[in-house]
Amino acid sequence: MIRTIQVELGERSYPIFIGSGLLSQIGDRCVEAGFPVRSPLLVVTDSEVAPRYLPALEENLRSKGYTVASHVIPAGEASKSLQVYEEVMTTAISAGLDRSSAVLAMGGGVVGDLAGFVAATYMRGIGFLQLPTTILAHDSSVGGKVAVNHPLAKNMIGAFYQPSLVLYDLDTLATLPARQISSGLAEVVKHGLILDKEFACWCREHAGELLALDAEALGYALERGCAIKADVVGNDEREQGQRAILNLGHTIGHAIEAVGGYGVFLHGEAIAIGMAGSALLAAKLGRDTAIYEDTVSMLSALGLPTRLPAEYGEDELIEAMMHDKKFKEGKMTFIVPDAIGAVSIVGNVEESLVREVIAQLKKEGSPW
Amino acid sequence: MIRTIQVELGERSYPIFIGSGLLSQIGDRCVEAGFPVRSPLLVVTDSEVAPRYLPALEENLRSKGYTVASHVIPAGEASKSLQVYEEVMTTAISAGLDRSSAVLAMGGGVVGDLAGFVAATYMRGIGFLQLPTTILAHDSSVGGKVAVNHPLAKNMIGAFYQPSLVLYDLDTLATLPARQISSGLAEVVKHGLILDKEFACWCREHAGELLALDAEALGYALERGCAIKADVVGNDEREQGQRAILNLGHTIGHAIEAVGGYGVFLHGEAIAIGMAGSALLAAKLGRDTAIYEDTVSMLSALGLPTRLPAEYGEDELIEAMMHDKKFKEGKMTFIVPDAIGAVSIVGNVEESLVREVIAQLKKEGSPW
Repeated sequence: MIRTIQVELGERSYPIFIGSGLLSQIGDRCVEAGFPVRSPLLVVTDSEVAPRYLPALEENLRSKGYTVASHVIPAGEASKSLQVYEEVMTTAISAGLDRSSAVLAMGGGVVGDLAGFVAATYMRGIGFLQLPTTILAHDSSVGGKVAVNHPLAKNMIGAFYQPSLVLYDLDTLATLPARQISSGLAEVVKHGLILDKEFACWCREHAGELLALDAEALGYALERGCAIKADVVGNDEREQGQRAILNLGHTIGHAIEAVGGYGVFLHGEAIAIGMAGSALLAAKLGRDTAIYEDTVSMLSALGLPTRLPAEYGEDELIEAMMHDKKFKEGKMTFIVPDAIGAVSIVGNVEESLVREVIAQLKKEGSPW
Repeated sequence: MIRTIQVELGERSYPIFIGSGLLSQIGDRCVEAGFPVRSPLLVVTDSEVAPRYLPALEENLRSKGYTVASHVIPAGEASKSLQVYEEVMTTAISAGLDRSSAVLAMGGGVVGDLAGFVAATYMRGIGFLQLPTTILAHDSSVGGKVAVNHPLAKNMIGAFYQPSLVLYDLDTLATLPARQISSGLAEVVKHGLILDKEFACWCREHAGELLALDAEALGYALERGCAIKADVVGNDEREQGQRAILNLGHTIGHAIEAVGGYGVFLHGEAIAIGMAGSALLAAKLGRDTAIYEDTVSMLSALGLPTRLPAEYGEDELIEAMMHDKKFKEGKMTFIVPDAIGAVSIVGNVEESLVREVIAQLKKEGSPW
């Protein structure tokens, strides 16, 4: 069964295909999408994904007549740097990529963000195909946000650049370690927490199947997650307004990643703690405390952390948030849940409230 | 007198203001354009322009309530590198630029291209204002092509990113050295050679006034040059078709710059030789040889070179052209004049013809 979601963005609309065995269709999909076989393709992938899937992918593309170059980056967030970006550019130029060429990003969010920024800026923009191999990447493969990190702040250098298509082969998820599965499910359930209570509850009920990578449950969850995100992005491609609701949990989450070092907490884990923090902030702003209890129970069911280790310093976290790009004109803005499945963008949040939230996240037992 | 040209690009449309004393209006223009005073501005300029105009510019912006940071790059093409790009990004982050901020590019094409790529990619795109201080920059300030160079090829890394406005203060041209003036006029007359015979002839007739920077003549020439380019860009923003005609002379010109080293020939000088070469190619393809004679007389009147020094190797030039991004799917494509004021895009040009043109460009006396 192939599930298809169409991301509606006018002339930049594109389809997402979700199903088993899709990687074996890649060559045909490239031809269908109009990429001429005379123009070289560049596959960007990482050191963990390459041994498993790169040879077959290259062979499949070559069997359709394409010339294929590949660039394998070291797995991990450290590869989302300007230095690695320049190395991939060198490969692209040396391989003779032209304006009709495409970059294929096969991997997780790091590969997608980096390769997408290469595609967005090589010769001022060439073709871009996403082949996500993690659950987390269901999030980054919708919406066209591509970026690399600056030593001073994450995702600071980037573009809005839509892929021509996303091919999501569920078979590639089978080898994910348990922590990566939970981390990916954090962004899945986030889409429910933001806009769809029923889906958030469904994720809690089917947590066991999701963690076991049951194809039917996972296919549905990814389809629903992608569809919710696609709706939001379709209404606000460049994040001038409502798209910001997708950042639920990200202000605190990014600060945790920046202070702890990328990779100590996985992205979804950091976001999960951030979402718990947002629910605590909601309570301080007068919302029902049951939002926090429900949020924590949903995240916990998926094997995600909701507490912050004591060693994370309040001052460093606040400092990291100040550098975060979600601070517009010096105001602290947070995405705050009004209920499960509904959020508000709240500007002018007092720093003291944020400090209280951090303290509560570090407290043992009940935060109240 | 302020001349105004509107570049029509739908929601990305913007005005170009041309006149004397315009830099003193910059603060008001930023307020008018909707940039909030709470968001820091970043001025990017170079080591030659900064001593003359930066203090007054900063003072003007601060008098309107803006916080201003500045980044001064070394003058010259070498600054259009990923390394300098990262340094400017560091300044932008350290200065706290947010999503409502803008980058002001005050200088020539190098400053505009580099600062524009920073604006296009900082937080996935913030405001961008162009303040050209060279004649050559009339060309790069219209059309939204921004880029940096890769060691293997020029302008290989970039984006299409439109400014919010262009403020062209003719007073800043007064200190340009003679070679820079001629170099800039190469792109001005190019717009006539491509699409407007009358304007090309006008440039030849008024060459003396243009070289002497007569405000009336220069204002008219820049307005006409910008308007022709704006028309072409308005019909094909992302260079998927006809916009390529603006590359007249650039395939050979870029190769000359790459082989000789950036800065041996100024950009306009290299393009002038390239345009002479395109006219020679036109003759080989059956067009009237008078096109070449006219092209050379127009370029010469503006003090521009039309011959190639003997030391430029044919093989190196051809090799450089192969790397040039205007080679699509392995075909050699050239913009070829059909007459003064009319050009065609000709694909599949034989390498041997290009080699003959290079030999003719190096010949003493008549090329025939």
